[in-house]
Amino acid sequence: MILEQITEPKQIQALTVSELKILAKEVRSRIVEVVSKTGGHLAPSLGTVDLTIALLHLFDPLKDRIVWDVGHQAYSWKILTGRNAQFDTLRQYKGLSGFTNREESPYDAFTTGHSSTSISAALGIACARDLNNEQGHCIAVIGDGALTGGMSFEALNHGGHLQKDKFIVILNDNEMSISKNVGGLQKYMARMLASKSYNVLKKQVWDFSYTLPANIRRSFIYGAQKLEESMMNILVPNIIFEDLGFKYVGPIDGHDIEQLLKIIKRVKNFMVGPVLIHIVTQKGKGYPPAEKNSELFHGTGPFDLKTGKQISDGKQTWSELMGSTLITLAQKDPKIIAITAAMTAGTGLTKFEETYPDRFFDVGIAEQHSVTLAAGMSTKGLKPFVAIYSTFLQRALDQIIHDVALPKLPVVFCIDRAGLVGEDGATHHGAFDLSYLNFVPNMIILTPSTAEELSAMLFWAASYQEGPVAIRYPRGTAIHSSVHKSLTNFNPFPAIIHSNKGKIALVACGDAFFTAEAVHNLLAKDKIPAQLIQLLSVKPLDENTLLSLASTCNYIFTFENNAVIGGMGARIAQLLATEPVKIINFGYPDHFIAQGKNSELLDEIGFTPNKLYKQIVQTLNE
Amino acid sequence: MILEQITEPKQIQALTVSELKILAKEVRSRIVEVVSKTGGHLAPSLGTVDLTIALLHLFDPLKDRIVWDVGHQAYSWKILTGRNAQFDTLRQYKGLSGFTNREESPYDAFTTGHSSTSISAALGIACARDLNNEQGHCIAVIGDGALTGGMSFEALNHGGHLQKDKFIVILNDNEMSISKNVGGLQKYMARMLASKSYNVLKKQVWDFSYTLPANIRRSFIYGAQKLEESMMNILVPNIIFEDLGFKYVGPIDGHDIEQLLKIIKRVKNFMVGPVLIHIVTQKGKGYPPAEKNSELFHGTGPFDLKTGKQISDGKQTWSELMGSTLITLAQKDPKIIAITAAMTAGTGLTKFEETYPDRFFDVGIAEQHSVTLAAGMSTKGLKPFVAIYSTFLQRALDQIIHDVALPKLPVVFCIDRAGLVGEDGATHHGAFDLSYLNFVPNMIILTPSTAEELSAMLFWAASYQEGPVAIRYPRGTAIHSSVHKSLTNFNPFPAIIHSNKGKIALVACGDAFFTAEAVHNLLAKDKIPAQLIQLLSVKPLDENTLLSLASTCNYIFTFENNAVIGGMGARIAQLLATEPVKIINFGYPDHFIAQGKNSELLDEIGFTPNKLYKQIVQTLNE
Repeated sequence: MILEQITEPKQIQALTVSELKILAKEVRSRIVEVVSKTGGHLAPSLGTVDLTIALLHLFDPLKDRIVWDVGHQAYSWKILTGRNAQFDTLRQYKGLSGFTNREESPYDAFTTGHSSTSISAALGIACARDLNNEQGHCIAVIGDGALTGGMSFEALNHGGHLQKDKFIVILNDNEMSISKNVGGLQKYMARMLASKSYNVLKKQVWDFSYTLPANIRRSFIYGAQKLEESMMNILVPNIIFEDLGFKYVGPIDGHDIEQLLKIIKRVKNFMVGPVLIHIVTQKGKGYPPAEKNSELFHGTGPFDLKTGKQISDGKQTWSELMGSTLITLAQKDPKIIAITAAMTAGTGLTKFEETYPDRFFDVGIAEQHSVTLAAGMSTKGLKPFVAIYSTFLQRALDQIIHDVALPKLPVVFCIDRAGLVGEDGATHHGAFDLSYLNFVPNMIILTPSTAEELSAMLFWAASYQEGPVAIRYPRGTAIHSSVHKSLTNFNPFPAIIHSNKGKIALVACGDAFFTAEAVHNLLAKDKIPAQLIQLLSVKPLDENTLLSLASTCNYIFTFENNAVIGGMGARIAQLLATEPVKIINFGYPDHFIAQGKNSELLDEIGFTPNKLYKQIVQTLNE
Repeated sequence: MILEQITEPKQIQALTVSELKILAKEVRSRIVEVVSKTGGHLAPSLGTVDLTIALLHLFDPLKDRIVWDVGHQAYSWKILTGRNAQFDTLRQYKGLSGFTNREESPYDAFTTGHSSTSISAALGIACARDLNNEQGHCIAVIGDGALTGGMSFEALNHGGHLQKDKFIVILNDNEMSISKNVGGLQKYMARMLASKSYNVLKKQVWDFSYTLPANIRRSFIYGAQKLEESMMNILVPNIIFEDLGFKYVGPIDGHDIEQLLKIIKRVKNFMVGPVLIHIVTQKGKGYPPAEKNSELFHGTGPFDLKTGKQISDGKQTWSELMGSTLITLAQKDPKIIAITAAMTAGTGLTKFEETYPDRFFDVGIAEQHSVTLAAGMSTKGLKPFVAIYSTFLQRALDQIIHDVALPKLPVVFCIDRAGLVGEDGATHHGAFDLSYLNFVPNMIILTPSTAEELSAMLFWAASYQEGPVAIRYPRGTAIHSSVHKSLTNFNPFPAIIHSNKGKIALVACGDAFFTAEAVHNLLAKDKIPAQLIQLLSVKPLDENTLLSLASTCNYIFTFENNAVIGGMGARIAQLLATEPVKIINFGYPDHFIAQGKNSELLDEIGFTPNKLYKQIVQTLNE
C-alpha cells in the first residue's frame, strides 16, 4: 500500500508515474469504501482522483494555492493532504467536512460549498500574491456544471482582463453537472471536443519546442504563443475562453496521469498570462455502479459496496411530494410551469420533466436567471413554480425583491431543504430563508408541518394571482399526520389552535411544530397547561390570534427551524412589543452550524423537546 | 413638430425615414430639456433614441415585447409610448419613474432598475408566448456594461440552448458602462469591431438575397445561415455569441436609423432561432457636454442647459469622504485594497484609483464576483474594502454569507446609498441592508451618523482582523456634527448616551439619529424628558445599555432608515421581549417606496420629526 505511507502531500512529488497510478487505485478504493458507509459526493470525487494526484505531484499545496469549486470533488485531496486517518469521519458530527474548509486544513485554500466561486477566489489569491511579492501558482478547478453559474463568467471576464501570470483555471469537463448539463455553452464544448485541429497544431508546436535547448525554449514558446494568437482567428475553431483572454489548452484525458503531468508541467513552466486547461473526466470513474448512474451517485446516502444498491427506506420525501403534487396541478392547469436550477432529481421534478417536458425548465446552476425567467413568464399569464434549495435561493435575493415582489408577479417559490440538512453542513443548511424573505414586501411565506399541508398550500398557491408565494419545507421524509387529514377549503392564513388552555403559549411553524407539540406533552405531564398554536403562514402573520394570545398569556415561546434573528419569532416579538406578554424565541443561534446528523446538531444547539422543555420550566420558575 | 402629433406609438410605423430622423432630434431636445431640470440618466437615454424609434417603427409594442435592461436608457421609449405629456414629472414624486415599470404603462414589458436582467425576462416572455401559442417578437436591449453581470451570461447560455424563434437580444455597445468598462469581453468586442471580414461576408449574402424573388428569399436565407455556420469556423473571427447558440448580426451604427431599420427588418422577417444584434452607439449622443463627459452625465443632477454645467452645492458627499479616508488609510497600510463593481465615481473611489491603480479593482457590474474576489484576497493577508450601493449588494448575499462570514475573513463592506435615495426610487433605495445582514453570523454592522464617525469606523475596520465589517451610510452630503469632533480611541460598540433623563427612550442609528434628536427636542419643549441613545453598532448590539434602558423606561422608540422588518428595531424588540418595557419601531413600512425627494417620501411614510413626535405623544396619552 502506497497510500498508507503518505503522511504529507510532498511525498507524492517523489513518486514515479507507475506508483502514482497505483496510488490512484488505492485512493479510489478508500473513497468508495468510506462513502458507502457515510454517504457523500461519490461520483464527483471519483472523477478527480487522477487530477488531484497530478496536481500534488507538480505543485506545493501550501505555496501554490488550489481552489476546488464547491469542494465536493475533493475527497482525494483530503485523503492525500494529511486527512486519510480521519477520512472515516467524513460528513459525520465533529468529523471532516464534506467540502474544503480553511479551518480544517492549511492545505484547503478556500472554504467552499456553493458552486461557481472558485475562479473569483483563486483570482483574488493571485492578486494578493502579486501585491505581496510572493511566488506560487493559483489554480481553480471548476466543473462544466459550475461554469453555467454567472459568477464564473464574471470571474473569467475579470481574469481575462487582469492577465495574471501563474493563474490557471482547470475546467473539469464531465459533460454533466448534477443534473444533465444544459446550455449553449455545453453544446459548444461538445463541438470543441469533436474538433481536433487545434490540438494537433498545439501538439506540433510543443513537440518542436522540445527539440530546442532548454535555455531558449521559454522564449520560443512565448513567441509561439504570440504567433498562435494571430493565427488562431484563421486556423482554429472558436475558443470562447481565448475570446475572454485566457490561453486554452486541451482537451486532455483527465484519467491519463502521464498526459496530465506532461501538459500541466508545460503550462506551469512555460506559459504566461491566465491559462485554461480543459480536461475531460468521467464522473464515478473506477466504481462501475457510479459510472453507470452518476446522477444517483452525485450525492448519495449509504449504499451496498458490492452491488451499489442504495440503502433507503423508500418513503416519500418532501421533494417527491412536491413534484407529484405539481404534476396533479399541471394536469388541470396548462399554465403551470416547473423551473429548477440543476436540481431536477433533488427537488423531486424528475417525473414532472418526463410528463411535461415543454413545461419544465432546468436552467443550469443559475439561480438568478431562474427567478427572473419565471418573472418574465408570469407577466404573460403563466404560473411558474421555482423549486430551489433554501441555501441556494440566497443567490437570487435581488431578483426575488425587484423582479418578482416589486411588480407583484405570481411566482411560487418551492423552497426545499429548509432548516438543517444534516451531513452537508454549514453551507447547505437552510437556516436563513425566513430571515431573508420576511422583509420582502408583497411576499407570502408558508410553512407546512405535514405532507397534507404542503399539498394544500401548493393547490392554494396555484390559484393565487396577487403576488409571489414562498413555501418552505424540510429535507427528508414527508411527515403525514392524523391531525390534518383533509384540508378542503384551505386557507393558509388563520393560525391553527391545537390547544387554547393555559397561561403560556407555544407558537410554532414548519417541522418545528412537532418539537413544540412534544414540549407541550412534556409540560402536560408536569401539569403545566400550555396553549399550542401552529402557524401555516409566517407572512402575513395571524395578528389577531397572536394579539389575543398576548392578552391571555404571561409567556409566549416560539419554535422555528430557522435563524432566530429575522425569523418568525422575531416578527412575533416585534408585533407584540407593546404587550405585557414575555416572548422567548427558540430557533438557530447566531453562529454557523457544522455537519452531523440533524439529531446531533439539534442537541448541540439545545433545540430538542427535552432541552426546550427544561428551559421553559426554568424560565417559569424564575 | 412631429413629436407633438404622436399620441400613440403605432403612429410611428407610418412615418418616413426623414420624418423619423426629425423625430429623433425632437425627442433628444425634449430629453435634454427635461433632464436639465429633473436630473436623471441623460447619457444612456440620448444614446438609444434612434434605436427606440427604429423599434417602434418596426414592431408593435403591445404584441411584441421589448425589455430595456436597467430601464434608465428608456426615456425616449417613455416619450414615444404615450408619456410625453407627463415627461416633465420624470423622477418626481408621484411622477414618471426613471426606469421602465409595468404599473406605469402597458408598453413597459417588465419592471426594471437593476442591471443584467433583461435577457432572462425576455426569454421568460418568449417561453410563455410559445406555450400560449401567441405571436410577436421578444426583444431584450442590453448595454455592454450590463453584459458583464453574470446573470446575462446565465440567460445567454440558456437562450442559446432553447433556440427560440423571434427572440432577439440587441447589444447596445457604447464601449462604456457607468464607469469605464472592464473585462476580457470588452477587449474581445473591440477586436470584433475592428474586424470587417465577417460583415463584408454577411452583406454580400444579404445583398444577393435581394436579387431573388420574395417567395424563395426566405428559404435562401435559411440555407445561407446553415452554410454560414459551417463556414464561420474557417473564415471569420470568433463570435462568442455564436458559440453560445445565437446568430450574430453586426456591428451596426446605432445612430443610423436607415441602417437600423434595414438590418432589424431583415432579422425580424427572415431569421430563425435566437439572434444577437450588435449595435454601436455613443452615450450622450446629440448633446455635446454629455458626449464629452458621458460618465458625469450617466446619472446627473440638474444642470445648466446651455453650458452643461452641473448645479451642485460642492459639499463633500459620504462617498467622497469614504474615498478620501481610504486613501489616507492606504498610505499607511499597503495591505489596503479598494474594490468596486462598475461604480468608481459613484462610490467615491476616483482618486483612489488614480493614487493606487495597482490596489484598485473595478470588476464590472459583477457584485457576486467582487465579494468572493475580496474573500480570496483576504485569505492572503490583504485588507479589501468593497464599496457597493446597499441595493446592489443584495446581489451578493450568498457570497457574503458563505465566502466571507463563514470563514470569518476580514473584508470591509462600504455600503453606500443606505436608506432612501430619492429620485431613483423603489429599485434603488437602500431599504433592506440591515435586514439582510443582521442574521449573518460573524458580521459586524456599523452605522455612522456623522462624517467623523464614518472616518473613525473606517480606521477601526482597517485594523480589525477577526471577521467582516459592514459600514452603511446614506446618499448625499456628509453631515458634520459638533457632537463628535474627535474620536480618538474609537470603540464602535458602546451606545452613545446623549441624554439619560426620562421614562421614555429614543434609540437611533445612522442618519435617523438626527430625526430622533429632533423628536427629542420637540418633546423637550413639551416638557417630556426622553433619553436619547445613539447606536454606532447595530450588530453586535450594546445589550447592557439596552437592558438597563429597559429597566428605567416605560417606552423605547427606535429610529432607523431601513425596513422595520428585520432591522435594528426588530433586534431590540427581540432582545427586550421578556422585559416589561414597551417598544415601538420606526422605520420603513412593509411596502416598496416610490421615487421623489427624500423629504416627500419620508413625509408620506410618516418618518418626519413632527409626525413621529405626534405619534409618540399620542401613544403616551393612550
